[in-house]
Amino acid sequence: MLWALLLEYDGTGFHGWQRQDNLVTVQAVLEAALSQLHGGQIPPVAVAGRTDSGVHAAGQVAMAPLPDSFDQRRVRDALNFHLKPHAVVVREAAPAPEGWNPRFSACKRRYLYRILNRRARPALSLGRVWHVPVPLDIAAMREGAARLLGQHDFTSFRAAACQAKSPMKTLDRLDVIRVDEEIHIRAEARSFLHHQVRNMVGTLRLVADGSWPAFRVSEALAARNRAAAGPTAPPEGLCLEQVIYNPPIFPSPTAS
Amino acid sequence: MLWALLLEYDGTGFHGWQRQDNLVTVQAVLEAALSQLHGGQIPPVAVAGRTDSGVHAAGQVAMAPLPDSFDQRRVRDALNFHLKPHAVVVREAAPAPEGWNPRFSACKRRYLYRILNRRARPALSLGRVWHVPVPLDIAAMREGAARLLGQHDFTSFRAAACQAKSPMKTLDRLDVIRVDEEIHIRAEARSFLHHQVRNMVGTLRLVADGSWPAFRVSEALAARNRAAAGPTAPPEGLCLEQVIYNPPIFPSPTAS
Repeated sequence: MLWALLLEYDGTGFHGWQRQDNLVTVQAVLEAALSQLHGGQIPPVAVAGRTDSGVHAAGQVAMAPLPDSFDQRRVRDALNFHLKPHAVVVREAAPAPEGWNPRFSACKRRYLYRILNRRARPALSLGRVWHVPVPLDIAAMREGAARLLGQHDFTSFRAAACQAKSPMKTLDRLDVIRVDEEIHIRAEARSFLHHQVRNMVGTLRLVADGSWPAFRVSEALAARNRAAAGPTAPPEGLCLEQVIYNPPIFPSPTAS
Repeated sequence: MLWALLLEYDGTGFHGWQRQDNLVTVQAVLEAALSQLHGGQIPPVAVAGRTDSGVHAAGQVAMAPLPDSFDQRRVRDALNFHLKPHAVVVREAAPAPEGWNPRFSACKRRYLYRILNRRARPALSLGRVWHVPVPLDIAAMREGAARLLGQHDFTSFRAAACQAKSPMKTLDRLDVIRVDEEIHIRAEARSFLHHQVRNMVGTLRLVADGSWPAFRVSEALAARNRAAAGPTAPPEGLCLEQVIYNPPIFPSPTAS
């Protein structure tokens, strides 16, 4: 029987999602826990999006086979028991609907990128933010972000290693808000190219610190050349917040 | 010359604020950094509130002597340089006004206590929250909290080691809100007894999980006996958010 798993992990101690020989990855740790429940080898786990080394997830989604006799609570609790002491947990488990796939059935992915914008280095948010000690202009950053919305060829914001067939993507949201000493950038799209969010953030930072006028973001996009855009922002500021399916797979958290 | 310092620290690696022989404490680390700037012994640093082992601070306030020739920026940056690699930073520095003292001049202290209320243990918020895996009733918790507001003898919520002259305190705020999978309890008062916030949270948790009816909080308060109230909530969920002075000592963070 196939199960959908809602995962949270601290990317700090992992070499990203994908299994690699002799490295601690989220996939390897999850598959080891699944094997212990199954008592044998299991096929590779499918996932909504492979996160890079150091990138976090609050709402990653995976699919894995588990014994028929398990219920939702037992799947979650038994996996969490076997995932210890690694910084990865199953928030929820639900039976995977017929034909559902965590990657191909996703309607939208939402990422949060956090910048700590103050002189002092992070203490409480260490490993969760990109520390930018120079003043950043939020209004300019928003002007730059607006130029990336909609359907475009995002070649300029794509990693060399990206395996997507097409560089055409539709960016539905790229919000920039200040939260106390932090700047939060939320990006939403059906799917993203490899490093796309971090490359967009690295480019917007150039606008925010006054190195670039906002219109240069449009020029960078039009160039369809990675060298025309800004550098890649570091992984620790990035978190995969949510993968959206229609209908939803997991119940939404209670509110009051 | 005396300076006011706005401090942030991750309490995880510290044996609390106060200097103790052969233990890493925030005070010891800060005084070592100050000594390096001074090139000699310095008098003990005054502080708004001594936090316990494992308790965090986003806005602790201390007072320390520094060479006359320093400006605000240099005080902050030089101290942060010498505080490395410890998880404590100076967010801001400002000249201490004549007669000002971080402890006695404080009008109010605000603490945040975070509970992670879900089955799965914390991954991203590990060391920042109290993990309570059973369902908690927010409305009941608020009813219990309301019974603690105002001026009372808080003996039932006071640690045996508490050095305050009187157990009378005025609790101005004890808000309980749900933020996704977390419950945030914000407590505000001119000052608190030792362990008061953690003892109030430990007691409210008994109301929230149905062990206690809300009126028992009033009975516990009236008993003036530590044994009548609930257990002490763990330190890692607690953070000293802000110490309020009138007039303010540090500029407030920019908003947009």
